[in-house]
Amino acid sequence: MFEAAELGQKVKRADFEAREHELHAALLDAQRKAQVADIPVLIIVSGVEGAGKGDVVRLLHRWMDARGLETQAFWDETDEERMRPRFWRFWRGLPPRGRIGILFGSWYTQPILDRAMKRIPEDSFDRELERIRHFEDMLVDDGALIIKLWFHLTQKEQYKRLEREARGKSGSVSPLTRRFSKRYERFRKISERALRKTDIGHAPWHVIEATNARYRDLRVGEILIDRLNARIGSPAPSSGRVTTPSPALTKVGAAGVLSSVPLDAALSQNRYRRTLREYQTALYALAWQARQRRINTVAVFEGWDAAGKGGAIRRVTQAMDARLYRVISVAAPTDEEKSHPYLWRFWRHVPRAGYVTIYDRSWYGRVLVERVEGFASAPEWQRAYNEINSFEEQLTEHGTVVLKFWLHISPEEQLQRFEERQRVAWKRHKLTDEDWRNREKWGDYDRAVSDMVARTSTERAPWTLVAANDKRHARVQVIKTFCERLERALR
Amino acid sequence: MFEAAELGQKVKRADFEAREHELHAALLDAQRKAQVADIPVLIIVSGVEGAGKGDVVRLLHRWMDARGLETQAFWDETDEERMRPRFWRFWRGLPPRGRIGILFGSWYTQPILDRAMKRIPEDSFDRELERIRHFEDMLVDDGALIIKLWFHLTQKEQYKRLEREARGKSGSVSPLTRRFSKRYERFRKISERALRKTDIGHAPWHVIEATNARYRDLRVGEILIDRLNARIGSPAPSSGRVTTPSPALTKVGAAGVLSSVPLDAALSQNRYRRTLREYQTALYALAWQARQRRINTVAVFEGWDAAGKGGAIRRVTQAMDARLYRVISVAAPTDEEKSHPYLWRFWRHVPRAGYVTIYDRSWYGRVLVERVEGFASAPEWQRAYNEINSFEEQLTEHGTVVLKFWLHISPEEQLQRFEERQRVAWKRHKLTDEDWRNREKWGDYDRAVSDMVARTSTERAPWTLVAANDKRHARVQVIKTFCERLERALR
Repeated sequence: MFEAAELGQKVKRADFEAREHELHAALLDAQRKAQVADIPVLIIVSGVEGAGKGDVVRLLHRWMDARGLETQAFWDETDEERMRPRFWRFWRGLPPRGRIGILFGSWYTQPILDRAMKRIPEDSFDRELERIRHFEDMLVDDGALIIKLWFHLTQKEQYKRLEREARGKSGSVSPLTRRFSKRYERFRKISERALRKTDIGHAPWHVIEATNARYRDLRVGEILIDRLNARIGSPAPSSGRVTTPSPALTKVGAAGVLSSVPLDAALSQNRYRRTLREYQTALYALAWQARQRRINTVAVFEGWDAAGKGGAIRRVTQAMDARLYRVISVAAPTDEEKSHPYLWRFWRHVPRAGYVTIYDRSWYGRVLVERVEGFASAPEWQRAYNEINSFEEQLTEHGTVVLKFWLHISPEEQLQRFEERQRVAWKRHKLTDEDWRNREKWGDYDRAVSDMVARTSTERAPWTLVAANDKRHARVQVIKTFCERLERALR
Repeated sequence: MFEAAELGQKVKRADFEAREHELHAALLDAQRKAQVADIPVLIIVSGVEGAGKGDVVRLLHRWMDARGLETQAFWDETDEERMRPRFWRFWRGLPPRGRIGILFGSWYTQPILDRAMKRIPEDSFDRELERIRHFEDMLVDDGALIIKLWFHLTQKEQYKRLEREARGKSGSVSPLTRRFSKRYERFRKISERALRKTDIGHAPWHVIEATNARYRDLRVGEILIDRLNARIGSPAPSSGRVTTPSPALTKVGAAGVLSSVPLDAALSQNRYRRTLREYQTALYALAWQARQRRINTVAVFEGWDAAGKGGAIRRVTQAMDARLYRVISVAAPTDEEKSHPYLWRFWRHVPRAGYVTIYDRSWYGRVLVERVEGFASAPEWQRAYNEINSFEEQLTEHGTVVLKFWLHISPEEQLQRFEERQRVAWKRHKLTDEDWRNREKWGDYDRAVSDMVARTSTERAPWTLVAANDKRHARVQVIKTFCERLERALR
């Protein structure tokens, strides 16, 4: 879920100053409206050490009317608190209706720490997360708006900062800092699980890249304004459950995760032939080994129209014994499929132990085409992230290798390919009016892909963003990933 | 949660035959309407061994149009199923829209068994239950109606049946039967946890007393008709989340849990004095020991108007050092309390380690007076059961002793006491117009109390139903329970 926050986003000083005034005014306005509407607002400030959470809290006090704010820092438990159930302190700290509570540290801190330090097993961790979901459900049902911010740094960046801080004014580094920097990977994995399991439609997470302070601060402002305005606009507290997770308006955050894909990557014909042959040979053997070890594989192919999904799939299937795999081409659902819950049509084809199912388009249609074209209602596609994560978690827990490819091309490359298809007779059938229509919504799809990757790329079922302007490069990247993931599973 | 299914309910053959025809017709009608409305219906048939689940399934086939039914028995997993994630078989078995799936065994069976056999720890069990909740949420969001039936037998009754069966046609007893009968208590405890954690407003459990087959069968029919009609009446699938858990119409099930309270229990003045003194002496010591051992206690007093809550509380507090306890009289919420979620006002007063808080009326007001008088909306009081259970679970997990008393009197006894209050000058202030108004809604309150006990009486925080027509008996029962629970906690 952190890929989208490792793009190296930056905002120049001049741009920041130009936008700050407007943001400040909009935020004050939204705050006042939330106050009049008697909405209790919770802003959860969390994330990695060194990301500047303290600075953000100070900024919020500058941007908003401090009289309507209540800041709670949940450091060590007091005696009073230890003598009661863990949530007592959080109940105590809840803002009343019409006020904004800024929680510096929250109910997430302790479980994540406990798990990172291996003080509790995974099942207990999951149970704590369930309790948190339950608590947040209750708050939302009661009319609260919960804005959960997670500030992220890359490993390199965090290391740099912690070191600098330690060298500089030593003593100001929290005692946990050093341990964290060593356990970055573990912490990341555990945070990802926490965020994923508590990322629900009515209380979604906002992961913010915190490397550049100006970008970070503008993002915070934009998110607060979006969420506050969406909530103020929605009719009654009881419908608080279906607030839209921050859409549209985001300006500085517009550059999605796809902008990080190195589209200029390419392979020469020679190099391509050689590498492809190598990986295909490897894959043939690996697929048989997986069959013997009864490991099954699910591979999902998504991508822009004309990005080359079919070609990439063929390079994979060519390398496997035909008895071991199945390709499911996902088209419009059948009558029978329509009469069941959305995921039913995909569950049907889950491979049995030792086999491979390749989905040419998949359950991600729900949060891509169905979202953009309005085939699914907002509540439907919003809760789909959670349903999909649960589905894939069941797969990976069962030992299934889950591969997910997004084949990315530039709009210019797509146009060229469309035009080629029109020119070449035997390719013409591949191009439909729908393709042209989809193309017009490039921006909407781009946003949907970013959200999809942010909300469903998980430790055990990560997205692979494939640079596909060069078809040869794309095919090799796909089959190479296939081999690596199978190898790891067989180890 | 099983108290309400141990009342010895019976239906005479003649009564059964008189009602069966009407039920049959109503059920067919509801089935047809659900079919037309394209609603997928799931009936989960579960409960203890020997309760006649097979008979119920046969009955449903007789009462409904078998062409619209799909029965799935989830016995041992097949090879095909074992090779995929656990829920694959359940996805496969889902009925399409417009049809009714009868699940004989379900996603509940395996986790309960695994936990009863100690094959999984409690945290894993809870995680499985969370997954189930997630799955059922998804189904309801998709428009499904889920009717969960749990057939209950007392330990004695189950033993009798299993023995009879074993003696008679040996071989027909399932191999698990004998083990279950030995582990009745454990199974009961674990089932209770499973039911409690998955008893949600939009997919509530119906616990049915199965001792008398005719009563059992009529209850099943009534519940199905209620739930189907409520769902058919509700507008859109997306609002399926707020279907009312089977209200009103229930005829045979009308006798609530309060009918089991032996209201004729009484104590002589002599016996009362002696016993009370004994228990008060014991309580004095126990409260100090609890303080030393840092065990805190929360005691809730609810009951009919004029049932003698005040007197019972005084007999308890008289016996404790005044520094150790606090009595919270719950009246109308303050402004500050109103501006927070419902349970906030009760969380505030949670005692610290070693102390006692007595709530004179409590959070149960939400599902009693607020439900009956309409101060809380249906979704509000329906989700309150879950919120309350979670609150009390946090208390008991923290080591708090949670006592809950319902002081029960008959309507006749209440009338006498009201009249006495009117006569005696210094008692007059205790009687208000509201008391008379509440009295007129005796039936509604009776039903609310039954639901409350059924949904919130748990292993670690059970309700004590106090026979309070005789004040002396009531006071002794309360203080005795207090002592016993403290003793157990101190052991």
